[in-house]
Amino acid sequence: EDMTTRTIDLAVIPGDGIGPEVIAEAMKVMKRALQDEQAQVTFTEYPLGAQHWLETGETLTDETLASLRGHDAILFGAVGAAPGDTRIPSGLIERELLLKLRFSLDHYVNLRPSKLYEGVPSPLAAPGDVDFVVVREGTEGPYVGNGGAVRSGTDHEIATEVSVNTAYGVQRVVRDAFERASRRPRKKVTLVHKHNVLVHAGHLWKRTVEAVAADYPGIELDYMHVDAATIFMVTDPSRFDVIVTDNLFGDILTDLAGAVTGGIGLAASGNINMDRTAPSMFEPVHGSAPDIAGQQKADPTAAILSAALLLDHVGLPEAARRIEEAVEKDITSRAEMSDVRATAEVGDAIAA
Amino acid sequence: EDMTTRTIDLAVIPGDGIGPEVIAEAMKVMKRALQDEQAQVTFTEYPLGAQHWLETGETLTDETLASLRGHDAILFGAVGAAPGDTRIPSGLIERELLLKLRFSLDHYVNLRPSKLYEGVPSPLAAPGDVDFVVVREGTEGPYVGNGGAVRSGTDHEIATEVSVNTAYGVQRVVRDAFERASRRPRKKVTLVHKHNVLVHAGHLWKRTVEAVAADYPGIELDYMHVDAATIFMVTDPSRFDVIVTDNLFGDILTDLAGAVTGGIGLAASGNINMDRTAPSMFEPVHGSAPDIAGQQKADPTAAILSAALLLDHVGLPEAARRIEEAVEKDITSRAEMSDVRATAEVGDAIAA
Ligand SMILES: CC(C)[C@H](C(=O)O)[C@@H](O)C(=O)O
Ligand SMILES: CC(C)[C@H](C(=O)O)[C@@H](O)C(=O)O
Repeated sequence: EDMTTRTIDLAVIPGDGIGPEVIAEAMKVMKRALQDEQAQVTFTEYPLGAQHWLETGETLTDETLASLRGHDAILFGAVGAAPGDTRIPSGLIERELLLKLRFSLDHYVNLRPSKLYEGVPSPLAAPGDVDFVVVREGTEGPYVGNGGAVRSGTDHEIATEVSVNTAYGVQRVVRDAFERASRRPRKKVTLVHKHNVLVHAGHLWKRTVEAVAADYPGIELDYMHVDAATIFMVTDPSRFDVIVTDNLFGDILTDLAGAVTGGIGLAASGNINMDRTAPSMFEPVHGSAPDIAGQQKADPTAAILSAALLLDHVGLPEAARRIEEAVEKDITSRAEMSDVRATAEVGDAIAA
Repeated sequence: EDMTTRTIDLAVIPGDGIGPEVIAEAMKVMKRALQDEQAQVTFTEYPLGAQHWLETGETLTDETLASLRGHDAILFGAVGAAPGDTRIPSGLIERELLLKLRFSLDHYVNLRPSKLYEGVPSPLAAPGDVDFVVVREGTEGPYVGNGGAVRSGTDHEIATEVSVNTAYGVQRVVRDAFERASRRPRKKVTLVHKHNVLVHAGHLWKRTVEAVAADYPGIELDYMHVDAATIFMVTDPSRFDVIVTDNLFGDILTDLAGAVTGGIGLAASGNINMDRTAPSMFEPVHGSAPDIAGQQKADPTAAILSAALLLDHVGLPEAARRIEEAVEKDITSRAEMSDVRATAEVGDAIAA
């Protein structure tokens, strides 16, 4: 190592279930990808998640959050209790750890690429050439935790959920979507919302997209109601290039998109703070899959592709590209075999 | 006709675009289906929709609504302006006519069956044996029109949407779902929600479903987050029997379900007031499709199947069954031909 070697200081949250297994492979591949670069990564592990909560009663303390802020980026596996585990209040780890990180670190761009690699089986009979990216808003909408219940548990209960949307929040994510579209060959942005029913939020989104579009004359703009978008996702997914949408619609659409492009075992994501006021966080879209945990059965590809998104974000686009190419090669080769490789074998193959 | 002939007094709202064409076929088939019954239908047409608004400035007056209340049921085509028509404020007709009818007439069960008929092409490579029904809540949730915007149009705008959920509203629709499941062979109810994030509404739904389930020991209960439900909808849709869900999730899932089972040209729906305090309304899930209007290109099957749901609701289940069987026969025969029949020809074939 000479003086010009850059060190990327990463926090790693392996989490629960298959999280640690897939993250181990992502770390392996990252190290290998940086071998020929003037850069290296260091990993600091944070034991957070359902298991950690059971042991300590802590989800995410102020101290841990402050410490996480000190890193260049965060690599996140998966968290969550086993479905039948009644010791853990439902949704607690998701809200108090995962969503708290996204909101506290201002991850306003929840980036979720969907690409159907050659040879990957899709549940669709004729999927076509699918290659789009969803820019999901990550810090607002129905995810803010606003709302409440009165007369809870009685026949007169009223429970509300409030979706909060701001011009500030919508503008910055819409602008990001147009920026990404302008760097892609097809140069198209599709806003997905439901403005015929959700008029207040819908009109803010629609007006904002139209205003930002005026600054990007080369970008084609399309609009689709969320219900219609799910239809096109299964009848004509190749029509999409960049989709921009709110937090909840983005959650729904990206799971569907993951399924259409071969399963969420391949779906990567970045929770990105584009202003770099706090570290961004990269995680596979899949969950902790407790049923297959610890058995080396999980596909580490989504975690590895998330690591590539991370490297791209921290300014190492060539290493990112090398990982993506290695993944693409590995995935394509899977078509010719029945892929029963262990988690680590897939990681080894991609690293090689 | 003898003294025992029953007369069903229907209101018909053909609406815009392809609405009138498909409704004409539904009326034709209904009349034919009742030929051998001690029952007949009378139709009173109401000219409502985008075109009517352009001509009169009226969406749905108190007088018209009162008059509609006097009928036994409503047959509804489709409403909505052509996408490019800037004379009509976006979403106005949907909200002030369609949603106003659903809310005013207390259509709390929005019933949407999804069945993949033999020979119908699905976008899925291996759809399996798909036959489920979505019981979508129709009078609450994010559809209530609650919320607003401050500093609208400025960089400091805040726009909210409030989802309102009541024990009263959730209980009645959940009970309806269990009732339907108990009359179906597979006896399974799946609640779809997102209670790990939308905790207040989600817990009301979850608690209610669990409480009602205690009264139906023979019914299997399942839960799925809405994002996961979209995955199963394309990877394993045959796992569903009765899905119960809120107004917005139901909107999204039923469009996806329609696509999976061969397109919304086949998807029927009922907006049902199970207490019969007001007439129920039956409509195809598809929209007004202005681009093909007046050309006899529309598939009237969804409207015809909606008429069957109507007859079932007004106490003529045998006539409903006959229509469903005729539709099934017609659909199956389509596999053997390239179906280029005119709208009326399809109606004629089913009627015959
Ligand atoms: C676990 C859950 C809170 C999360 C979300 O809803 O955002 C997940 O579904 C996702 O998409 O990352
Ligand atoms: C037209 C629109 C208001 C309506 C809805 O959102 O309910 C439609 O999508 C439907 O599903 O019937």
